[in-house]
Amino acid sequence: MQIAIVLFDRFTALDAVGPYETLGRLPDSEVVFVADRTGPVRSDNGSLALTADRTLRDVPAPDVVVVPGGPGQTPQMANETLLDWIRTADATSTWTTSVCTGSLLLAAAGLLEGRRATSHWLALEELRRFGAEPTGERVVTDGKYVTAAGVSSGVDMGLTLVGRISGDAVAQAVQLGIEYDPQPPYDAGSPQKAPAEVVALLRSRSRFILGGETTT
Amino acid sequence: MQIAIVLFDRFTALDAVGPYETLGRLPDSEVVFVADRTGPVRSDNGSLALTADRTLRDVPAPDVVVVPGGPGQTPQMANETLLDWIRTADATSTWTTSVCTGSLLLAAAGLLEGRRATSHWLALEELRRFGAEPTGERVVTDGKYVTAAGVSSGVDMGLTLVGRISGDAVAQAVQLGIEYDPQPPYDAGSPQKAPAEVVALLRSRSRFILGGETTT
Repeated sequence: MQIAIVLFDRFTALDAVGPYETLGRLPDSEVVFVADRTGPVRSDNGSLALTADRTLRDVPAPDVVVVPGGPGQTPQMANETLLDWIRTADATSTWTTSVCTGSLLLAAAGLLEGRRATSHWLALEELRRFGAEPTGERVVTDGKYVTAAGVSSGVDMGLTLVGRISGDAVAQAVQLGIEYDPQPPYDAGSPQKAPAEVVALLRSRSRFILGGETTT
Repeated sequence: MQIAIVLFDRFTALDAVGPYETLGRLPDSEVVFVADRTGPVRSDNGSLALTADRTLRDVPAPDVVVVPGGPGQTPQMANETLLDWIRTADATSTWTTSVCTGSLLLAAAGLLEGRRATSHWLALEELRRFGAEPTGERVVTDGKYVTAAGVSSGVDMGLTLVGRISGDAVAQAVQLGIEYDPQPPYDAGSPQKAPAEVVALLRSRSRFILGGETTT
C-alpha cells in the first residue's frame, strides 16, 4: 500500500507528520513525500524542512492521498499541476484525505462537492464556496474522503484510517506504539472550549495563521 | 529565545515535530534543527527526512534543548560528541527536555541522576540504570528538566512548556491554533488502557519498536 503525502512551501509540519506517524506504521505500507520538485520543502515558519523524495509525476497512483494545510495552502489553490495531480491520484485511490486547510485543496480540485467535510476551525466556512458541507467534527468520513480538522487532528485521522484499513487491533497497536494517551495541560483546543479572548485573538490573526485570502 | 531540536539517524519524527509545532509558536522564538552534520536526517522507517540546518557545534548555547527518541537512540548512547553537546548546552539552558527515549540520552549525559523522569513506556525502567526515578506520568518536570513519555506526548510537553515560558493565555492560543482537542478513535494509548494482547504484541516487538539494546 502506497501512501503519498503532499508537501508545498509553507505547509504546517504536524499536518503532514501526524498522518505519517500513524499511517506509516501500517503493515506492508510505504509512505512517500511528494511535491512539485524533489528536495527540502520549508514549513510555515521556515525553520523546518521535510524532504520530498519524489515529484508528483513520479507517484501518479498512490493508494492513499494525504494533503496537509498551512499558510502555504492559499497560493496552491492556483497550482493547476497540483490540483490536476490530486484529481488524477483520486481517480484510482482507495482513500483521499486531508488535514487542516488541505481540505480546501481537495475542494478546489472538485472532489468535495455535495460531501460533508471539515477543515481548520478558522477556515471551515470556506468549504461552502466549493459546494461542500462543513461539519464541526474532528474527523469526517464521506465515502472514501476523510478530512480532518486543524493541525493536530491528523493523528486522530490517521488512527481512524489505520482501523478502517487494517482493523481495530492494528490501530490500537499503533496508538500504544506512539503512546497516544493525550493529556493536554489546558482545555482550549476548540473555539467552543477556549476562553473567548483567546478565540478573539486567533480570529483577529487568522490572516497570519492561515495565510491570507482563505479567511477574512 | 533559541530552541534547538536534536536530530539523529532513525529518530522518530513526531517526537521532534510535536515540540516544534508547539514551542515554535512561542512569540520571539527561533527553532533550529541540529545534528552532527547539516543536511537531511532520516527517520526510523526511512521514508521521512528532516533537514538539520546547523551542526551541534554551530548552536552551543540554546535556551531550550529538545532531544527526541526513536530506534536510532540506542547507537547515540555511545556518541560522545552528542553527549558532550547535551552537557554543554545544558550548562546554560533554561530548559532541557526530551520526548520518548530521548530521556535515555539526557540520562546517559548524566543529567537525570536523582531526578524524576519519564520515557516511552517500553523503555521506562531503563532510566534506573542512570540513577533516574521513572514515573508513569505523561510529562514530568523536575527543576529545569522536562521529560515526556512516548512519541505523541511531545505535544503535551510542548504546550506545558509554552505555558511555563509565556503564560496560560499564550499556551491556550497555541492549543487552539493547532486545534488540539484530541479525540482518539480508540482508548489504547497506555499499557494500562490497551487490550492485554495488544500490550503483549508490542512487548514482544519492543526490540523492533525501540531499536534494540535499550529494552530486553
